Amino acid sequence: MSGDSLQIFSEFLGTLILVLLGNGVVAAVSLNKSKAQNGGWVVITLGWGAAVTIAVYVSSFMGPAHLNPAVTFGMAVAGNFAWNLVVPFIIAQIVGGIVGAMLVWITYLPHWEATKDEATILGTFSTGPAIRSLVSNTVTEIIGTFVLVFALLAFSQHKFADGLNPLVVGVLILSLGLSLGGPTGYAINPARDLGPRIAHQILPIKNKGGSDWGYSWVPVVGPMIGGLLAALLWGLIPV
Amino acid sequence: MSGDSLQIFSEFLGTLILVLLGNGVVAAVSLNKSKAQNGGWVVITLGWGAAVTIAVYVSSFMGPAHLNPAVTFGMAVAGNFAWNLVVPFIIAQIVGGIVGAMLVWITYLPHWEATKDEATILGTFSTGPAIRSLVSNTVTEIIGTFVLVFALLAFSQHKFADGLNPLVVGVLILSLGLSLGGPTGYAINPARDLGPRIAHQILPIKNKGGSDWGYSWVPVVGPMIGGLLAALLWGLIPV
Amino acid sequence: MSGDSLQIFSEFLGTLILVLLGNGVVAAVSLNKSKAQNGGWVVITLGWGAAVTIAVYVSSFMGPAHLNPAVTFGMAVAGNFAWNLVVPFIIAQIVGGIVGAMLVWITYLPHWEATKDEATILGTFSTGPAIRSLVSNTVTEIIGTFVLVFALLAFSQHKFADGLNPLVVGVLILSLGLSLGGPTGYAINPARDLGPRIAHQILPIKNKGGSDWGYSWVPVVGPMIGGLLAALLWGLIPV
Amino acid sequence: MSGDSLQIFSEFLGTLILVLLGNGVVAAVSLNKSKAQNGGWVVITLGWGAAVTIAVYVSSFMGPAHLNPAVTFGMAVAGNFAWNLVVPFIIAQIVGGIVGAMLVWITYLPHWEATKDEATILGTFSTGPAIRSLVSNTVTEIIGTFVLVFALLAFSQHKFADGLNPLVVGVLILSLGLSLGGPTGYAINPARDLGPRIAHQILPIKNKGGSDWGYSWVPVVGPMIGGLLAALLWGLIPV
Repeated sequence: MSGDSLQIFSEFLGTLILVLLGNGVVAAVSLNKSKAQNGGWVVITLGWGAAVTIAVYVSSFMGPAHLNPAVTFGMAVAGNFAWNLVVPFIIAQIVGGIVGAMLVWITYLPHWEATKDEATILGTFSTGPAIRSLVSNTVTEIIGTFVLVFALLAFSQHKFADGLNPLVVGVLILSLGLSLGGPTGYAINPARDLGPRIAHQILPIKNKGGSDWGYSWVPVVGPMIGGLLAALLWGLIPV
Repeated sequence: MSGDSLQIFSEFLGTLILVLLGNGVVAAVSLNKSKAQNGGWVVITLGWGAAVTIAVYVSSFMGPAHLNPAVTFGMAVAGNFAWNLVVPFIIAQIVGGIVGAMLVWITYLPHWEATKDEATILGTFSTGPAIRSLVSNTVTEIIGTFVLVFALLAFSQHKFADGLNPLVVGVLILSLGLSLGGPTGYAINPARDLGPRIAHQILPIKNKGGSDWGYSWVPVVGPMIGGLLAALLWGLIPV
Repeated sequence: MSGDSLQIFSEFLGTLILVLLGNGVVAAVSLNKSKAQNGGWVVITLGWGAAVTIAVYVSSFMGPAHLNPAVTFGMAVAGNFAWNLVVPFIIAQIVGGIVGAMLVWITYLPHWEATKDEATILGTFSTGPAIRSLVSNTVTEIIGTFVLVFALLAFSQHKFADGLNPLVVGVLILSLGLSLGGPTGYAINPARDLGPRIAHQILPIKNKGGSDWGYSWVPVVGPMIGGLLAALLWGLIPV
Repeated sequence: MSGDSLQIFSEFLGTLILVLLGNGVVAAVSLNKSKAQNGGWVVITLGWGAAVTIAVYVSSFMGPAHLNPAVTFGMAVAGNFAWNLVVPFIIAQIVGGIVGAMLVWITYLPHWEATKDEATILGTFSTGPAIRSLVSNTVTEIIGTFVLVFALLAFSQHKFADGLNPLVVGVLILSLGLSLGGPTGYAINPARDLGPRIAHQILPIKNKGGSDWGYSWVPVVGPMIGGLLAALLWGLIPV
């Protein structure tokens, strides 16, 4: 396998693990009869933080482990990543997100029938707003992803002891979830939202309703703008 | 003591500590009048994550600290472990699990009489499904253990600063519990489930009921298949 | 940009991120309809701990990352920081706090109208006492900030592996919040309290009430005294 | 200050911080009107884990940072600590525990009057059993302290990256609390229990009742036996 192919594969695999573990925790807390039901926001946010940490370990020995189109795009704008790999990376990330969500469906198979609420079921695949206001929701996603990409760029200015970096990235995701996740459920990653939404559309999930495509552009466009702004403002930091 | 004997002893001791601390947190949250009663899923999953971290520190200076037959089997399939030690390791792990569960019984001695529900008491020893569906439950255990063993193999591609690895393994266990533990309580380790089930069978526990041997093969067979699949797919990664 | 200007900018940026993420978690838990509503004290304290860790990473490659006038003052008293930068640092920190709080307001924009309680809204900007008793409240802030600054001075006697220090600072903030935050909400940082209070005063926030300026000096004076005492007692440690 | 005096002082100071932060989190969760009231077991156990981590950083640059008579005794039995310092260390630890508990009293001053339950107030100073059974309670403390001291001895066989060890010790305390704390509240440290009990006896605390001296020997004798057993069994490990 060529170096580029291996890197693209690592994005697929890492995002698959990211969504399996990340969407998994939402299923754990949301689905009826799950042992983790009603575990609360601390379980969701610790689960996503740990999911990202593990996904980065699983893919970063083969590639840069962006696992997020907004990160890939931001890194390219910041001059830290080759433009010719941007589209293949984003495709690999979205496909990884689709397959990861399918594995969540299989892991929790008897629980879909036990869960009657369509919004709860969609919520284990894709994000939705607490208060629907598309402009505000987009702004929230912009700010969250701005902090994500800006912090990742700041991390690149630090040295880390061997193996420490993925833990720190997990703390960043934990922080974003705890602090900025209240209004929109912190997609901050188009592959994490669009991939599972496609899986929700095509899988024969018991008790599912519509996939809310009217909202689907918010967690795609918001994060891409946030990543872009972070890369642009990063360019103004005199380092 | 020969090197092999020391390694086998380290598996016994590590799994003993693993089950004492891991099953201990389930007892803490489940048993009547415990100060941690109703602590919730975050307590359970943090408790298991920390338990594995401590158990690895306590045994890894004497051996590889698998503490899990599915890991031992997967590592042997992946070519990272000598086949002649597989059976002695698994026996040591199961015996460690039995003794660890007995120590939980002693630690919480007055609380068994205070707890009237047989399923709660069995749940502090062995896992059981949220929705009984043996095929689905097995698939869930396969997926969870697949991620466990695959991630451990990925960790082997990383360098870790001195003493950091057991913390990262703890984060992995935390992640698996938070995200994939909802349907079956994430055994993902035959010694962690079978050892305590044997202890439950033979100990004179107040208010205990049956040991649910009809389910007992699921958290043994599922994890072994998951470990096998992880080792086989790992072989396809071009590293 | 000169070295001094870069350091002053780093205090502005770091405190902005600190307050965006720190006040963000209070908004997440407090505001009506937020997905994190009623997440509880563990969410608040993990959120502030992670916020400080991320803020230190984002600013410490450009400067000392005090992000707190009590720390800047204490470090100057302890002889670890140049006096001529104290006032510019404090101004940068407070302005960072104001802008950070404004970004929280924007992030949670639809949620202010959904929240009817004025005290809840003020609480997402500034701290207030659980039991109003200005002398006791000041003492509580003195003790909390004493431990903060004393521990930071103790950290300076340790070597840390690359990139580990901000995680340890986050654990310190987590600890202070969990243990000493009950009576006053642990301001322990004048910029974190005064900056957002100014933002609360000037922003057109839906459903807001008064900014409680009668209490505002407590989370300024208490922390400055605590930082001073820590620096003075540190001078008695024979190291 | 001589080397010995500095080490003894470091035990006093470290145990003071340990009890201020550790008992502080119990006050935070238990006392009426505290912002952390009803934060639950996860807050208590994270609080004690972080408290020990911070206390170790604050004292370990001046001495060994045992902060616990059972650790000092166990280390002496294991041949890792000079016997002539055992008594001065234990006295310094208990005095540190007294002063630390007094500072908790001051930090939460208005909250004692607001709390009417005598057992709740005593519980913020010293531990008590969930089910009173002095033999069982002692056994629980023996097992918990055995794991503590045995794990610390195991840590001594590992190398740790600079500054990592106190974090790992914190994870150990977190684990012990989560898993073995349910029956007796995990004193596992005579200084942490006896020191604050003395403070409870002598301080003019509003609404306080008796100091339960009938139980006071359990969290002293149990931990000392546990530390002794750990040191003796450690001697059998062929390392």
